[in-house]
Amino acid sequence: MDSITPASPGKAEALALRYGPDAVPAAGPWSDAIALLLSHRSVRGFRADAPPEGTLETLVAAAQSAATSSNLQTWSVVAVSDPGVRGKLAAIAGGQKHIEQCPLFLVWLADLSRLGRIAEAEGRPLEGLPYLETFLVASIDAALAAQNAVVAAESLGLSTVYIGALRNDTQAVAGLLDLPPGAVGVFGLCVGYAQPAAAGEVKPRLPQAAVLHHGTYRIADENGQRAAYDRIMGEFSRRNEMQADTWTERVLSRIATIKALRGRDLLKPALRALGFPLR
Amino acid sequence: MDSITPASPGKAEALALRYGPDAVPAAGPWSDAIALLLSHRSVRGFRADAPPEGTLETLVAAAQSAATSSNLQTWSVVAVSDPGVRGKLAAIAGGQKHIEQCPLFLVWLADLSRLGRIAEAEGRPLEGLPYLETFLVASIDAALAAQNAVVAAESLGLSTVYIGALRNDTQAVAGLLDLPPGAVGVFGLCVGYAQPAAAGEVKPRLPQAAVLHHGTYRIADENGQRAAYDRIMGEFSRRNEMQADTWTERVLSRIATIKALRGRDLLKPALRALGFPLR
Repeated sequence: MDSITPASPGKAEALALRYGPDAVPAAGPWSDAIALLLSHRSVRGFRADAPPEGTLETLVAAAQSAATSSNLQTWSVVAVSDPGVRGKLAAIAGGQKHIEQCPLFLVWLADLSRLGRIAEAEGRPLEGLPYLETFLVASIDAALAAQNAVVAAESLGLSTVYIGALRNDTQAVAGLLDLPPGAVGVFGLCVGYAQPAAAGEVKPRLPQAAVLHHGTYRIADENGQRAAYDRIMGEFSRRNEMQADTWTERVLSRIATIKALRGRDLLKPALRALGFPLR
Repeated sequence: MDSITPASPGKAEALALRYGPDAVPAAGPWSDAIALLLSHRSVRGFRADAPPEGTLETLVAAAQSAATSSNLQTWSVVAVSDPGVRGKLAAIAGGQKHIEQCPLFLVWLADLSRLGRIAEAEGRPLEGLPYLETFLVASIDAALAAQNAVVAAESLGLSTVYIGALRNDTQAVAGLLDLPPGAVGVFGLCVGYAQPAAAGEVKPRLPQAAVLHHGTYRIADENGQRAAYDRIMGEFSRRNEMQADTWTERVLSRIATIKALRGRDLLKPALRALGFPLR
């Protein structure tokens, strides 16, 4: 199957794919856009053909339409096409070949440098800029923007995958993209048409009861929920990834050691070197 | 006008509203979902009527369908309905009445506590949890999830506004919601039907040339772009907000002083007290 936009499954089917047949939440109203969101899957194998001209500008228009704290617009995005730079970014990310392969690769920046330049041009103080809060605003706004770009891309039959592993070495990424002080790549994004074999199934998530709380944070039967999810993910993995690890094993191995952070244990000093004091 | 889903403007009109008529980018392919994204506006006045039953579960299903780093799912969400708690949250946010008024109010959490409980239940180490990187993963994943919920809500004719000002006092919010250590509200979200007078116009953004870079970060005519945007935003403000401040003045006043952070200069010690060492 290589059709551009797969037909959306119905609501019941979409929810069963996302949660497994025994954990379908009592969802209410539905729309084509919601069906699109539910059908998301991350893709790591891309065809070589580029999307139509103007696709990048369409995605950025969607991204800029997301909310941004106090309209500060503290993010930017770099579209990287040079194969040499792509190869270096792929190496930083631990050898993720899809960074080299995808037709469109975007690095999303938390960017306080623009506000810095404005204040300098106007001769005004910048007391609020060096705080962790302001870095967090920029990172969250970059995420809101990127997610809009993802939704826009998927509505056009394109597939995506986020590359958090660019944070393995934010200083090297900043050097490759010639970023000014006060700008940092918080994650990458591959965009392109999925190779048919790479599309895969929708990945199940934890049951809603595990993440949705009413009024206050209350934990009930978390271990039972997790055991059920481990079973669902075990079946998913056997069908899609030929691995038998449970979700529990995967997340525990991901957070067990400093080594598993793959350099991101040094994010704080790296950010300070890039012009984020994180006060 | 109080129709549920406004008709989407065409591509040219949508781009002109978002960028002003003189800064329309050369966008390419288009879709109904992209038209929906472009039509976003934050709303701060809500009707009292609740959305249909199951809307919350629909929005959370959309949120859980967003990408999440290594499938760690390090976010949670609390739906707050108690009027007393709503009033206190509104006060923390500097008197934002729409927090009390909207039919659905959600607090999105960066939530590392779940991984902590899993590791404890399994008797396994957690070396990666106390790092700034892991808090950032959780915050970004909460933002990706929330943005999907926003898109889903808007596709149903609902309006939204993010409440970053919950970070004015994260410890008070944690107390109100009875959050465990390792969980923090990173922002709130009001959801409901817009009061007709509160819908307003689409807010223009900086021209694409200001945020989109090709290959490397290059600044060209930033002050000229800003002057043009100040004119567009000046006209927007006169039509919509009866204020004459330029964008430049607004962002400079937002970052000029520690006082303008409204307590968020203390986010770092507050996070540490909430169980995020931020190593």
